[in-house]
Amino acid sequence: MRYRPSSPPDGGRIPVTILGATGAVGQRFVERLARHPWFRIASLCASNRSAGNTYQQATDWIMDSPIPPNIAGMQVRECTPDVPGSIAFSALDSSVAGELEETFAENGYAVVSNARNHRMDPDVPLLIPEVNSDHLRIIRQQRYEAGCIITNPNCSTVGIVMALKPLLDKFGIELVDVTTLQAASGAGNPGVSSNRLIDNTIPTIDGETAKIETEPLKLLGEFRDGAIHPADMRISAQVNRVPVRDGHTANIKLKLRAHASPEDVRQALEAYESPLASLNLPSAPGRPLRTSRDPSFPQPYFHRNAGGGMAVSVGPVTPCNVLDYKFAVLSHNTVRGAAGAAILNAELLVRSKLLSLLRQ
Amino acid sequence: MRYRPSSPPDGGRIPVTILGATGAVGQRFVERLARHPWFRIASLCASNRSAGNTYQQATDWIMDSPIPPNIAGMQVRECTPDVPGSIAFSALDSSVAGELEETFAENGYAVVSNARNHRMDPDVPLLIPEVNSDHLRIIRQQRYEAGCIITNPNCSTVGIVMALKPLLDKFGIELVDVTTLQAASGAGNPGVSSNRLIDNTIPTIDGETAKIETEPLKLLGEFRDGAIHPADMRISAQVNRVPVRDGHTANIKLKLRAHASPEDVRQALEAYESPLASLNLPSAPGRPLRTSRDPSFPQPYFHRNAGGGMAVSVGPVTPCNVLDYKFAVLSHNTVRGAAGAAILNAELLVRSKLLSLLRQ
Amino acid sequence: MRYRPSSPPDGGRIPVTILGATGAVGQRFVERLARHPWFRIASLCASNRSAGNTYQQATDWIMDSPIPPNIAGMQVRECTPDVPGSIAFSALDSSVAGELEETFAENGYAVVSNARNHRMDPDVPLLIPEVNSDHLRIIRQQRYEAGCIITNPNCSTVGIVMALKPLLDKFGIELVDVTTLQAASGAGNPGVSSNRLIDNTIPTIDGETAKIETEPLKLLGEFRDGAIHPADMRISAQVNRVPVRDGHTANIKLKLRAHASPEDVRQALEAYESPLASLNLPSAPGRPLRTSRDPSFPQPYFHRNAGGGMAVSVGPVTPCNVLDYKFAVLSHNTVRGAAGAAILNAELLVRSKLLSLLRQ
Amino acid sequence: MRYRPSSPPDGGRIPVTILGATGAVGQRFVERLARHPWFRIASLCASNRSAGNTYQQATDWIMDSPIPPNIAGMQVRECTPDVPGSIAFSALDSSVAGELEETFAENGYAVVSNARNHRMDPDVPLLIPEVNSDHLRIIRQQRYEAGCIITNPNCSTVGIVMALKPLLDKFGIELVDVTTLQAASGAGNPGVSSNRLIDNTIPTIDGETAKIETEPLKLLGEFRDGAIHPADMRISAQVNRVPVRDGHTANIKLKLRAHASPEDVRQALEAYESPLASLNLPSAPGRPLRTSRDPSFPQPYFHRNAGGGMAVSVGPVTPCNVLDYKFAVLSHNTVRGAAGAAILNAELLVRSKLLSLLRQ
Repeated sequence: MRYRPSSPPDGGRIPVTILGATGAVGQRFVERLARHPWFRIASLCASNRSAGNTYQQATDWIMDSPIPPNIAGMQVRECTPDVPGSIAFSALDSSVAGELEETFAENGYAVVSNARNHRMDPDVPLLIPEVNSDHLRIIRQQRYEAGCIITNPNCSTVGIVMALKPLLDKFGIELVDVTTLQAASGAGNPGVSSNRLIDNTIPTIDGETAKIETEPLKLLGEFRDGAIHPADMRISAQVNRVPVRDGHTANIKLKLRAHASPEDVRQALEAYESPLASLNLPSAPGRPLRTSRDPSFPQPYFHRNAGGGMAVSVGPVTPCNVLDYKFAVLSHNTVRGAAGAAILNAELLVRSKLLSLLRQ
Repeated sequence: MRYRPSSPPDGGRIPVTILGATGAVGQRFVERLARHPWFRIASLCASNRSAGNTYQQATDWIMDSPIPPNIAGMQVRECTPDVPGSIAFSALDSSVAGELEETFAENGYAVVSNARNHRMDPDVPLLIPEVNSDHLRIIRQQRYEAGCIITNPNCSTVGIVMALKPLLDKFGIELVDVTTLQAASGAGNPGVSSNRLIDNTIPTIDGETAKIETEPLKLLGEFRDGAIHPADMRISAQVNRVPVRDGHTANIKLKLRAHASPEDVRQALEAYESPLASLNLPSAPGRPLRTSRDPSFPQPYFHRNAGGGMAVSVGPVTPCNVLDYKFAVLSHNTVRGAAGAAILNAELLVRSKLLSLLRQ
Repeated sequence: MRYRPSSPPDGGRIPVTILGATGAVGQRFVERLARHPWFRIASLCASNRSAGNTYQQATDWIMDSPIPPNIAGMQVRECTPDVPGSIAFSALDSSVAGELEETFAENGYAVVSNARNHRMDPDVPLLIPEVNSDHLRIIRQQRYEAGCIITNPNCSTVGIVMALKPLLDKFGIELVDVTTLQAASGAGNPGVSSNRLIDNTIPTIDGETAKIETEPLKLLGEFRDGAIHPADMRISAQVNRVPVRDGHTANIKLKLRAHASPEDVRQALEAYESPLASLNLPSAPGRPLRTSRDPSFPQPYFHRNAGGGMAVSVGPVTPCNVLDYKFAVLSHNTVRGAAGAAILNAELLVRSKLLSLLRQ
Repeated sequence: MRYRPSSPPDGGRIPVTILGATGAVGQRFVERLARHPWFRIASLCASNRSAGNTYQQATDWIMDSPIPPNIAGMQVRECTPDVPGSIAFSALDSSVAGELEETFAENGYAVVSNARNHRMDPDVPLLIPEVNSDHLRIIRQQRYEAGCIITNPNCSTVGIVMALKPLLDKFGIELVDVTTLQAASGAGNPGVSSNRLIDNTIPTIDGETAKIETEPLKLLGEFRDGAIHPADMRISAQVNRVPVRDGHTANIKLKLRAHASPEDVRQALEAYESPLASLNLPSAPGRPLRTSRDPSFPQPYFHRNAGGGMAVSVGPVTPCNVLDYKFAVLSHNTVRGAAGAAILNAELLVRSKLLSLLRQ
């Protein structure tokens, strides 16, 4: 929730709206945007059921800091493409996000979405600024005159991909085995009943396996000849819900393309630096990867808030009897894996000047 | 805790002692042996610190049924090889189990151990009766005149191996990737502080990875020419502690040696029958594997007690992008993975007549 | 879930229906009635949304034993007063229970309800068989020709009242201060989101305070001159939801009317015997109160299942600086506090012959 | 962990030592003192077992932010009264605190203790700066030439007393009934085993009831004629451990001496202002009491960090059937209830000039 010191590109804060503002991810958007140096919340949108109430009335607030006082009394509006704001952050449920986001883009909003619906569209960037900021350019191919749609990956994918990126760059990656331990907040709010999660774990999450097995290929793909060419690797995922509030852990085993010693792999992770440093984006963590050689690292309660929730924690690398190496990765699922990711995407969009181009 | 109806082979219940009776696994031994049709608890042994107190005084009881009334008042004794009992169930800590178990065997006790110390000794059977009951014969090579040592595997290993067994028999297995979610009770008592496990998981368990990567090779190995020849497969494990009381989950991905369709694999698991059926052992579950095609199966709270805690639950088999197939396995770590396993081993020992041979 | 051996009064099992069969309490009814020696489940009713599906399809099952196989495939029906069964166990939501239960009673069903709607009606018995079985006679004043309505108290009330009863009988009670720690399952299913209960407690439960402050007065009241005269005492309650699956704890401080030493009070609780012993009701626990002088007694995980979930656990009595004495009470909220309570009420109804009178 | 802007009284930061630095409260001292504007950690002391190791090696760190980098490598020392520092913050276990703290005071340290040993000594202030800062003067009666001992109350007491203070001042208080729900960290580290707290609560905490029933009388007592005269009220407490990391909840029912309407009581709490405002102490929260009329307020996860963990949250006041009023109180047990309390006491000591007097 702390931002790097930075002033908005053109001196004034950009008005934004939040679509689906009352859910778990919507709340995280509100918490982070309420104090954002570049953006100001101009409107809050949610379902018909919530519209007309104040944000406080409409929301079962589950953040650990209070509702920002200047937001609590704002009236929630329906998701219609005439609400104040030029960027529309979308925390919409996938049952409605597909069409609504297109409508907003058609009406000139820069839609910065956390929903899964458009992630795999060929002309929509699926973006992690530290990983594939060049994919952003594909929005020029979108059919919208003034608006656009950009997306961030699934909450589990983002940590995995950020840890894979330096290894892909240095050694190439052929195979990835993933098993996740995912936090309750990843299911939204109310999400999982406490009757299901006290003294229990659940070995399935609807649709999650497919997302983890496909999204990284686009994220780590190459943008050339006007298209994103998916990375050439195979990923297999198993997923679990665990009784943790926030923070998804991924246990990763992988096979590299080039030979690399354990020490090579560790150093590639430890030495990794953000390619965004010069852009001075408020949400970008100084070091995107936090590594440790302590075998008990990382743990959700203790490390999910590293870098204001935007850094990814990577445990010690050890040899694997089946593939080459194995290690654990942790990221904050509603920050780095959702609202924080989208806000960072919007910051990149603003910095890239594409937003101002779009709005002309 | 329910036993199959059965009467002791020779009409009288066999006196047994429990070494390390006050810890988490020791308590599970007490709970299950107190009502066992073949065995009766003749003495309870623990550290010097506990000796002299009643069992109730000496024990921080964490079972969910009360201390059996006839046991609560028994005096705890030191672990000396003159305590009443002809079988010595060992729940000793590995820091002392090695020597103590040998001393008991030398003094004519049949030591049925849950400790890791002697598991990999060439002349000690590492036993899962449904899997490798023929390995029991190796005790004839032990140097003890009247006693012996037999062991059961690590609490995570047992569920994994029982699920692998029918697949190994039918298709052969080349590679196994495992990631575990392990319950708090697996760390003993007091074990893990609640400061560590509320809203948290831990990506390491001391020594666990090595056990999961090696013990299955001996368990699934072949006994011929007087020796156990380890199975020819490679296993890679990652482990996690999760805030669950009892029940270890293993997420498994594997590569078979022969071609098999998904349906072939499912049916191999579903059709698997216990080779022990005719022995009528009291602790043996009717069906050792409980399978379901429900993706939310199995879950620790709901399924750990299947078959009185002695059955292993196996979730749906799906294709894997990296190896061949993947599925989840659940077993009760202090029952099937510890005390129940040892008691079943003792039942096999009794039924096999080896015990009476030893005692002559 | 274990019943005392007993055969049905007239040799055949009585057909029953369950209204609201898919919720948390409805599931507990199913679990317990599926193996009941006197009753057999003839139909299962739920909302329109569930009707037409099998019970397994319609239900998010949260019991720790599997759905009884003979029930899993039964078709769920709408709650219309023509479903098979002569007793209708009601686990209906209070938003619909009021009218529906009356309709069932009008159509000749003996409605045995866990819902709050009719509890305080002057001609409806609010019943704990060990406490006020004579109140049952008031059903003769009900307007139904063949049917009737009887109710059990709120899930927190039952444990409190059972612990108060022997003290009221011996010493009189003037004042009662209660603070509860209530389990997640008390909120139904899905009930409380895990986003609310991981690493948290909640200091309110809708409507609960009023129930705890009023229901005991009727329960402990006197039935004379054709009416129930409420007990003359004052109760004050504070309530909390805690991250426990099952088992409500009440911390009680009370002021007696007669002088009593601490030992007097302890012995009154310890010596308390069930007035139901001679009736041989299958669900009645042998000893309704389980007492201990261990200050760490009782605890939900370890003691909620005492007496098959039907016994109430009472901790040590100590002097109170403000009132006279204080102690803690634990009861299983969906067994003794809901489904088990209703089933015991039905058993009393059957045994009392009132059911057969009603049905003539 | 955020401090109010403030500069040290005399321009330089005061060197301090922490006794018992590796435990749960000791860690909280380290976390808060590492960035304190007035104090700097000059040494860290713990048991012989830890001495000689770096702080990182010696500590099972359970704070949710990393060990401060400048502290991690400091060598832990034995608790001998020659370690650098003029203030000695004591998080010692009560088994050793009594004598050790006296030794440190004799050697000229201002001992600011969280241990219970000296709390009730007639010449030792038991201090909550917002409540009884005048009690500080009693240290002049201590036998030490240059040193002194001051103490803060038990972790549960502090929230209770801060909520009672404005009501005592306005209406007088006669009787107080308390029932607590206390967090795991209150038992220290490792403290309570997760085998005890998953899906469970515990109705006892060693020695806690007596502390809650006696400490408030001294805290709310009057300092006159050179002695503290305890407040004239009676308190009765029942305590519970619950599966929450941090944050103790107290359910309070009380009887006032003067008549007061519900609204009078609410306003007394809401209008309460810190008497410390003018002192500008870095750890003092702006508003010591945070009130709300929302019945679901306060909750540990959501409100324990109010005022940097130093504010006390008070829920809505409602009439009580037995005494006069009831409400719930929440405070952070290792901050306001331990390390933060002691640091605030030290700030008061520094500001009061008593420290410099002592050191002359």
